[in-house]
Amino acid sequence: MTSRVRVFSPATLSNLGPGFDILGLALAAPGDTVEGELRDEPGVEIADIDGDDGLLSRDSAQNVVGVAATHVLEQARRKGTTPGVRLWLHKGIPIASGLGGSAASSVAGAFVVNELLGRPFARMDLVDGALAGEQVAALSVHGDNIIPCLLGGIVLIRSLAPPDIVSLPVPRDLHVAVVHPHCRVSTAAARALLDGRRYPLEAAIANAANVGAFVSALYRDDVALLGRSIADALVEPVRAPLVPGFARVKDAALCHGALACSISGSGPTMFAIASSHGSAGRAAEAMRAAFAEAAGLESDVLVGQVNITGTSVVSGQ
Amino acid sequence: MTSRVRVFSPATLSNLGPGFDILGLALAAPGDTVEGELRDEPGVEIADIDGDDGLLSRDSAQNVVGVAATHVLEQARRKGTTPGVRLWLHKGIPIASGLGGSAASSVAGAFVVNELLGRPFARMDLVDGALAGEQVAALSVHGDNIIPCLLGGIVLIRSLAPPDIVSLPVPRDLHVAVVHPHCRVSTAAARALLDGRRYPLEAAIANAANVGAFVSALYRDDVALLGRSIADALVEPVRAPLVPGFARVKDAALCHGALACSISGSGPTMFAIASSHGSAGRAAEAMRAAFAEAAGLESDVLVGQVNITGTSVVSGQ
Repeated sequence: MTSRVRVFSPATLSNLGPGFDILGLALAAPGDTVEGELRDEPGVEIADIDGDDGLLSRDSAQNVVGVAATHVLEQARRKGTTPGVRLWLHKGIPIASGLGGSAASSVAGAFVVNELLGRPFARMDLVDGALAGEQVAALSVHGDNIIPCLLGGIVLIRSLAPPDIVSLPVPRDLHVAVVHPHCRVSTAAARALLDGRRYPLEAAIANAANVGAFVSALYRDDVALLGRSIADALVEPVRAPLVPGFARVKDAALCHGALACSISGSGPTMFAIASSHGSAGRAAEAMRAAFAEAAGLESDVLVGQVNITGTSVVSGQ
Repeated sequence: MTSRVRVFSPATLSNLGPGFDILGLALAAPGDTVEGELRDEPGVEIADIDGDDGLLSRDSAQNVVGVAATHVLEQARRKGTTPGVRLWLHKGIPIASGLGGSAASSVAGAFVVNELLGRPFARMDLVDGALAGEQVAALSVHGDNIIPCLLGGIVLIRSLAPPDIVSLPVPRDLHVAVVHPHCRVSTAAARALLDGRRYPLEAAIANAANVGAFVSALYRDDVALLGRSIADALVEPVRAPLVPGFARVKDAALCHGALACSISGSGPTMFAIASSHGSAGRAAEAMRAAFAEAAGLESDVLVGQVNITGTSVVSGQ
């Protein structure tokens, strides 16, 4: 057992265009960091949280990081007596941004406990704990943030229960622009828009073809095909009205070097992909300007590549 | 120019479970063969057809092979004066079997004219002619038989207009069982069942996930994952009642070595995949027995691998 550990969990983009609930990608940055240490008293204490503007609960039964940590601690208890843990959460991911912030905190909470206990569980065994954590923040959880956050890279979730996960290759020349406008979209509201909605076969098949081409593009290292495949006939048309300035931002990305542009998760964050850092940067700047002009919103801009390692220990003693 | 050419076009499986209208696979056998020779009179003459039980029209404007051949001849005429062609069609693929018989004849008709004229067109340029041919036999055409018949292997059709085709890798250990019961399913009736039908998001996403996993399985050479991915929440449940004994046949395949089993195209042919010739053979026998017991139908059985070369010249002079 290790007495103190610090863990980094990356932000994630989910859906990625055609892959609602089934495709996700880990970003090199930003991410949430959780420090943990063992303590003699049982259970989980959240010692402090920063970076959340005071919005998150410090109650370990109410905060995703506490729930995930508790879940793993309980699982470990079945294997023998365990102590409790004390956690510090450093939010690097903006709350309700569509960048998988609650998934990152959940995964980090589960991961740090496993590390502190001397790794009784394999990485994939932490999925249940992380899902239990994310459940506190979302009405329904689908793993499309949890799984890439845990494993890194780009993942396809063929099935979550039982887990049937495919880790996909990451093209070297894949660059991602992420633009987070300073507004919020409720995940619950974004989900409610989809409730009971039914689709023509053509729309379903278009998305299936695009997911197939998306996967193929990753194996072929073909960023142009990847761009053509990031098209969504199912969810994006329904949710776009929730993102102020959506059409203008998307047009701006595509006119300034992006190969594709869509909503990350339930938004309002939008992402674009490009085949060079320069193109991704120009697309990001154009997207920021479009959010400002079309919706009067300031934005945070990020240009980077894919996190390959997933959640990992950044220091321990 | 070559004066006489014989061309082989393979049978094809379309849909392949989750990939309605977008996935197709070429079979090593059976196939249609078309012989052609140049003649001085313009236009296309169908000299003879065999293997069709007298069911197909000999009128080159009514038969898919004639229409496809005429289309390519007309295209070539725009490039300069061309003679006419005389064709012999040997049907090796049962009519209305769900094995892409009209697609094979169409592709062969287009292909043989291109060969006779000294190949003025690239292979993919023949798609339009072949589609024009298939249109005579089907209400709507989607390329999921035409494209694998032309190119061989396993293909994903991301888009047909404009064509965006992905040729996928073929696992070495992929064996296919095909069982064609002696009954017919009208493609028009099978399509009509789908008209206006709408689907919940979950079903659409399940198919998208399975198409993604299907594609990944081919690149990973993972026949087990391929088997898990051949699952269809959209079309198979609707069309299964058109195939007498469907549930019993599918169960028989899965209980006797198959990794997956579904309908080929609009049926009634069913296919299964397995990771060895022996398993595919046992599955095929079990499927044949199930068609007999459940529906009183005799069947033709075929066990083989994937045709890699696509439509090709088998002899010329």
